[in-house]
Amino acid sequence: MTYVPPLHDPQARGFASDNYAGIHPEILEAIVRANGGHQVAYGADVYTQHLQGVFQAHFGAEAAAYPVFNGTGANVVSLQAMTERWDAVICAQSAHINVDECGAPERVGGLKLLSVATVQGKLTPELVEMQAHGWGDEHRAQPKVVSITQSTELGTLYTVAEIAAIVEHAHARDLAVHLDGARIANAAATLGVPLRAFTTDVGVDVVSFGGTKNGMMIGECVVVLNPDAVRGMAFLRKLSMQLASKMRFLSVQFDALLSGDLWLRNARHANAMALRLQAAVRDVQGVEVQRPVEANSVFAILPADVTEHLQARYPFYVWDQQTGEVRWMTSFDTTEADVDGFAASLAGEMTSALSRRQAG
Amino acid sequence: MTYVPPLHDPQARGFASDNYAGIHPEILEAIVRANGGHQVAYGADVYTQHLQGVFQAHFGAEAAAYPVFNGTGANVVSLQAMTERWDAVICAQSAHINVDECGAPERVGGLKLLSVATVQGKLTPELVEMQAHGWGDEHRAQPKVVSITQSTELGTLYTVAEIAAIVEHAHARDLAVHLDGARIANAAATLGVPLRAFTTDVGVDVVSFGGTKNGMMIGECVVVLNPDAVRGMAFLRKLSMQLASKMRFLSVQFDALLSGDLWLRNARHANAMALRLQAAVRDVQGVEVQRPVEANSVFAILPADVTEHLQARYPFYVWDQQTGEVRWMTSFDTTEADVDGFAASLAGEMTSALSRRQAG
Amino acid sequence: MTYVPPLHDPQARGFASDNYAGIHPEILEAIVRANGGHQVAYGADVYTQHLQGVFQAHFGAEAAAYPVFNGTGANVVSLQAMTERWDAVICAQSAHINVDECGAPERVGGLKLLSVATVQGKLTPELVEMQAHGWGDEHRAQPKVVSITQSTELGTLYTVAEIAAIVEHAHARDLAVHLDGARIANAAATLGVPLRAFTTDVGVDVVSFGGTKNGMMIGECVVVLNPDAVRGMAFLRKLSMQLASKMRFLSVQFDALLSGDLWLRNARHANAMALRLQAAVRDVQGVEVQRPVEANSVFAILPADVTEHLQARYPFYVWDQQTGEVRWMTSFDTTEADVDGFAASLAGEMTSALSRRQAG
Amino acid sequence: MTYVPPLHDPQARGFASDNYAGIHPEILEAIVRANGGHQVAYGADVYTQHLQGVFQAHFGAEAAAYPVFNGTGANVVSLQAMTERWDAVICAQSAHINVDECGAPERVGGLKLLSVATVQGKLTPELVEMQAHGWGDEHRAQPKVVSITQSTELGTLYTVAEIAAIVEHAHARDLAVHLDGARIANAAATLGVPLRAFTTDVGVDVVSFGGTKNGMMIGECVVVLNPDAVRGMAFLRKLSMQLASKMRFLSVQFDALLSGDLWLRNARHANAMALRLQAAVRDVQGVEVQRPVEANSVFAILPADVTEHLQARYPFYVWDQQTGEVRWMTSFDTTEADVDGFAASLAGEMTSALSRRQAG
Repeated sequence: MTYVPPLHDPQARGFASDNYAGIHPEILEAIVRANGGHQVAYGADVYTQHLQGVFQAHFGAEAAAYPVFNGTGANVVSLQAMTERWDAVICAQSAHINVDECGAPERVGGLKLLSVATVQGKLTPELVEMQAHGWGDEHRAQPKVVSITQSTELGTLYTVAEIAAIVEHAHARDLAVHLDGARIANAAATLGVPLRAFTTDVGVDVVSFGGTKNGMMIGECVVVLNPDAVRGMAFLRKLSMQLASKMRFLSVQFDALLSGDLWLRNARHANAMALRLQAAVRDVQGVEVQRPVEANSVFAILPADVTEHLQARYPFYVWDQQTGEVRWMTSFDTTEADVDGFAASLAGEMTSALSRRQAG
Repeated sequence: MTYVPPLHDPQARGFASDNYAGIHPEILEAIVRANGGHQVAYGADVYTQHLQGVFQAHFGAEAAAYPVFNGTGANVVSLQAMTERWDAVICAQSAHINVDECGAPERVGGLKLLSVATVQGKLTPELVEMQAHGWGDEHRAQPKVVSITQSTELGTLYTVAEIAAIVEHAHARDLAVHLDGARIANAAATLGVPLRAFTTDVGVDVVSFGGTKNGMMIGECVVVLNPDAVRGMAFLRKLSMQLASKMRFLSVQFDALLSGDLWLRNARHANAMALRLQAAVRDVQGVEVQRPVEANSVFAILPADVTEHLQARYPFYVWDQQTGEVRWMTSFDTTEADVDGFAASLAGEMTSALSRRQAG
Repeated sequence: MTYVPPLHDPQARGFASDNYAGIHPEILEAIVRANGGHQVAYGADVYTQHLQGVFQAHFGAEAAAYPVFNGTGANVVSLQAMTERWDAVICAQSAHINVDECGAPERVGGLKLLSVATVQGKLTPELVEMQAHGWGDEHRAQPKVVSITQSTELGTLYTVAEIAAIVEHAHARDLAVHLDGARIANAAATLGVPLRAFTTDVGVDVVSFGGTKNGMMIGECVVVLNPDAVRGMAFLRKLSMQLASKMRFLSVQFDALLSGDLWLRNARHANAMALRLQAAVRDVQGVEVQRPVEANSVFAILPADVTEHLQARYPFYVWDQQTGEVRWMTSFDTTEADVDGFAASLAGEMTSALSRRQAG
Repeated sequence: MTYVPPLHDPQARGFASDNYAGIHPEILEAIVRANGGHQVAYGADVYTQHLQGVFQAHFGAEAAAYPVFNGTGANVVSLQAMTERWDAVICAQSAHINVDECGAPERVGGLKLLSVATVQGKLTPELVEMQAHGWGDEHRAQPKVVSITQSTELGTLYTVAEIAAIVEHAHARDLAVHLDGARIANAAATLGVPLRAFTTDVGVDVVSFGGTKNGMMIGECVVVLNPDAVRGMAFLRKLSMQLASKMRFLSVQFDALLSGDLWLRNARHANAMALRLQAAVRDVQGVEVQRPVEANSVFAILPADVTEHLQARYPFYVWDQQTGEVRWMTSFDTTEADVDGFAASLAGEMTSALSRRQAG
C-alpha cells in the first residue's frame, strides 16, 4: 500500500504568520544528514554536543544551550530556572508569556507575572521600576526577573542601548534579565550587530532563542548566558516536558541555522520583505500603517470589508477587532512577487471599497 | 561558508534504546513532501486534518487525534483531560509516569498517582481494587483513572482479555482507562490483532500513541477514543506546552506511519530482533533472561564485569544495579547481523569471565 | 509551673489594620460555649451544620457555607471551584488576589488573572469587556470569572446597581461572578441594605465572606450562592489546605457574628469611626484625603516627616511611597477617643512640620 | 437579639479522633488573656516573638518557629522549603502526606513522593535506600528529603536510636530529614525524653509540630531546626495560604502548651488512656489488638456486627474495611470512666454477638 499524502500547494504563501512557512531546504538537508545509525538519546549525542560550541561562537564562552520543543517551553523553563517558587517576573502587558500561552507560565511554572502597560511593546527602566518593589514583604511575589521580547510582539525593536539600560537598571535591583528571542534573528538583522551585542555583551542572563519562525521545522533553545542566574536547567527541561528523546534532530537544525549565516540570511530576507510591503501599501489611500516596521511584520488599519475580501485570497490575522488593525507577517520564503501581488490586491480592494462607499 | 556537520557513523547501532535510532526513510520522505508553501499553524493544516481519518481507520469513528511532542506530554495532557483537580490516577509502581518523568504528572498536572506493586509491570482488576476506594472522602485524592502501559516498561504484554477485564472492572467503579502506548505498535505486532482490538473494542478511553520509538523523528499523539472521558483537550495541550506551531510536520509523520502498514512492519521487525536476541543468548552459560520477551526488549542478568566489557562496544543500560539486570532494546533498524554480532560478543565475554574466575 | 504570658497593653490601638484588633467579646464567649465534649471533626459537627441555616438566612435558601482559615484561602478555593484548569479570572489590578497574596492564586490554583487598571479599585462592565474575549482560542486563558471586591481595597464601594450591571454583563458573556467580601459587612453597613441585596439578589455566584477583620479570631467562609457555578468545593478546600479539623470553633464564631446583628454593629461602628476620622482631619491644613470614605478606611497624603513622627505613636501603613499616601483603618474596637486623639496628634504634627519648614 | 448556640453535650466523648476533642482550659484561658488592644498582624506581635524562645527552649537555640493553621499546611510548607522544584520526598506508603491530604503535597507543592511499603508505618535506613538513587538523572525526581512521622499514623513509635540511624543514613546521602510531628508530644511522653532528644539532638532538620490534636483549638507549627535545610519559609507560608493575620491567637496557644508542661501532661494522659483501653479489651474474647500501643491509639480487629453496634453509642472509625480493623483514639480529655464504660460495652457486645452466632 502506497502512502498518498494530502495535497497541498507548495507555492501558496500568505502573510498570516512566519509559523505558516515550512522548513528551509538547508535545514531539511541537515536533518537528512543526521539520520541513520544510533545516537545517544536525550542530548548526549554528537550533534547536541557540537551545538554548544556553535552557540558559544555567537553568545560567548559561557553560553550553554538547552534545545526544547517550542517557545512556550523555552520561556517557561527559563523563567523557572531563574526564580524561586515565590518569585515574580516583570514583563510588558503585551508579552507573549502574558497573553498568548494559555496561562502556561502560571499553571506549569507557578509564576507570578507583574505586567506593565507599554508603548509599542517595549519596557523601559522606568516601567520596570513601577513593579520593582516589595522585596522582603511576604505578601508580595518577589520581583526577580525582567523579561523582554526582542523583536517585540508588535514588530518593534529595542536598540542595544535600550536593552543595556534595562539590564543595568535590573541588575542594580538584583533582577535578572530574560530575553524572549522567538524572533531574535530578525532583531539582529535590523540592528546590524552580532547576536551577542544586545545579549551577552550588555548583560542579558538568559535567552529563549527562536528557531521555528526562522526556518526550522521544530525547535527553540534556552541559551544560558550567565550560569549564576539559573538552577536546575536539565531537571526543569525534563519535568516541563520539553526534553526530546531523539534530540539530535533538534540540535542539527540549530547547527544548520547557526554554523553559517543562514539565520541571518533568513531574517534579513523576511525583514526586507516587510519593508517592501510597507513601502508598497503605505501610499494606498485608506491604509494606515500603525507601528514602526523594524522586523518582519507590518501592522495596518483597514476597513473591515477590505480585510474580509483580502483574507479570502491571502491568509492573515486581525490583530484588534475593535480598531480594525491587522498584522501581516513575512518569512524566509516570502517572495517579492508575493509582496507585490498582495499589495496590488490590497490597492484594488481599497478602490472597490471606496467605490462601494461612494455608490452607497 | 559551508556547513560541516559533526561526524557520526550511520552504521553504528546498539541495544540501549529504541530512542537511539533515527528516522525511518519513509517517514523522512513524508516530511520532505510536506515541506514548501504555507500551511495554517497549530493544527489547522491539511495534514493534521487528514490525520483524523487515519487514526479513525485504526481506532474507530469517534477517535480524535491530538499530536504532541513527546510521551511525557501525551501522558500528562491525557491525564489532566480525564481528571478534575482533585482526582487521582491508579498505576503500576513501575509505570513510566511514576518513575521516569521527573515528577511531571505531579508538578505540571497536579496529579496524585496511586501506585501499586505489580508482577512484570502489569495491573490486574485485583491490584486496581487495592486503590479503588475512598470516593466522597475529601481527605483522599479521588480515584478517577486507571493507567496501564502496553507494552509495559518491562517488555511484557497484556492480552486482549486482560485489558478487557481491567476496563470492565474500572468502568464498573466509574474509573476511566488510559493506555500509555509509547510502544503500542509492538504490542499489536505480537498480539497479531488490530490496534483497536485491545483499545477501542474493549473500552479503553484514551491512548497515548507512541510514534518516536517506532521510527518517527519527533511526535506522540493523544488519541481520545471516548469523547465523554475528556474535557478541554485543546486548551490542555497548549497550556502544557505541547502545541506545535508547524504541526504539519508532526502529523505527516503519523500519516506516513499509519496510513499504510509501516507502523506494523517496524514493530514486527523490532520484536523479531528481540526474539532472535533472546534465542541467541538464552543458552549462553551464565546469562539469565529474566522476563517474558513479548515486545522489543530483553532483560537479562549478567556478571558486572561482563556488562562493563560489553558496554565498551555496544551501548545498553543496566536496569537494576543491585541485581545486575540489564536491558537490551531492539528497534526498527536493528539488523540480524547486529543481533548475531552482539550475541557472539556476549558469549565471548562470558567465556573470558569464566576463565578469569577459574584462574582467580 | 505557672504560665506567664508576654505583656501587651489591651488598651493600645492604632490605625494600621482591622487585623490588628482582637476578638469581639461576644465571639470569644461563643468559642468558650462551644468547648467541651467531642464533636465530629472536619465540619460534621452541630455548629457547622447549624451555620448553614445562618448563612441561608442572609443569602437565601441555596447558599452553602464552607468555612476556611483565611481570605487567601477563601479566594483561591472559590476561584478554583469556579474554573477549569484552562480558565482565567478578570479582576482589578488593585485586587487583593492580584497584588497581596504572594502569587497564591497562580501558584496554588494555577489561575491566570487578567487584570485591568481601574479608578478607585472598581471594575465596570466596560472594564470587564476589555478582557472578555478570546473564547475558543487555545492560546488564551479562557475568561470564566469576574472577581470584584466589596468594599474595595481602596475603601470604596460598589452600589447595588453597579454590581448588578457587572453581573448582568458578566452572565451575558457566560462569566460567573465572585465577590471578595473580606470587608463585606462594612459594605452592607454603608449601603444600608441586607447582605443579599448586593449578592444573591443581583446574581453574584460565590462570595468570600470575611470574618476576621470584623471581630473574629480566625475564619473566613466561602459562600456558594449559585451551586451550578462551582464543582468540587469540599475536595478543593481540603487540597488547598483550608480544612480545619476542629471546625466547630470556626463555625461558632460565624454563628455568633451572623445569628444576631453583631456583624452589622461591628461594621457600622468601624465605618462611623472612619467618617469621624475623615471629618476630623479633612480640615487640617496640608492633609489631603484622597478617596471617598465609604467603608472603614481613610486614605490621605501627608508629608513624609509627619508620617514618620505620627507612626512613632500610632501604627499605620504608607500605602504609596512615591506619593506619600497613607492608609488609616478603623475597626470594631476603635473608640471615639482613639480617633480624636489621633486627629489631634496629626494636627499637632502638621503644625510642627509647618513651623520647621518656615524656619528652614 | 440574643445568640442561642446549638446544643451539644459537653460530656459526650468517644474514641474516633483526638480532633474530636475541644480546647484544653489552660489554652482557652491563654487566648482570652491575649485578647484586647491591637497587635501587629501576620506574626510581628509580642506573642509570636515570645514563642521563638519557647520553641528554642525545647529544640535548641537555632530553632525558628512558623505557626500555621493545620497539619497539611505544616507539612507542605516544610517540604517545599526543603526542596527545589525538581526534588522528591521519600516517605512511608502509610504516611499522612501520602494518603490523607487529597494530594495537597503534589497539587500545592508540586512535590513528588517516593513511597515505600513499611511494617507498622516506620521507615528504616534500608527502606530509605530503596528510593535513594538516581541523582543527576534528569528523568528521576531527585531524592532530597526523608519524611518520617512520630508517632506514626499507626500509633507506633520510632526509638531515639531508630531516628538517629535514619538521619545518619539520610545525611550521608545528602538527604534532609523532615519529621511530621502531628502527635510528637505523644511520642516524647512514651519515650520519656525531651522533644529535642529525638529531633535536634539526632539531626532532624525540620519538624511539623502538632498542636491541635494535643489540646489546642487551631494551630500547627513548622519548626526549623537546621536553618541551612530550608529556603523562603516566610514566603512559602504566605503563598501556601497558611499565614494567619491575627497570629497572636495561634502563637499564644503554643505558648500555653509549651511554656510549662501542659504539652506533656496532655500527651501522657492520652497515652495512659490508650494503654488502659488496651488492657481492658485485650482479654475480651474475639478482640484482636493489632499493633503495639505506643502512643494514643489502639487498633483492633472486631466482628463487623460488633463494630456497628458499638458505633451507635461511641463514635470511632473503621481503619480497614476488608480486615475489620478499627481504630480507637484517646485524647487529653478522655476519662478513665470513658475507657471503662467503652470496654464494658465492647465486652457486652462481644458476648451478645457470640450468643447470636451460637443461636444462628
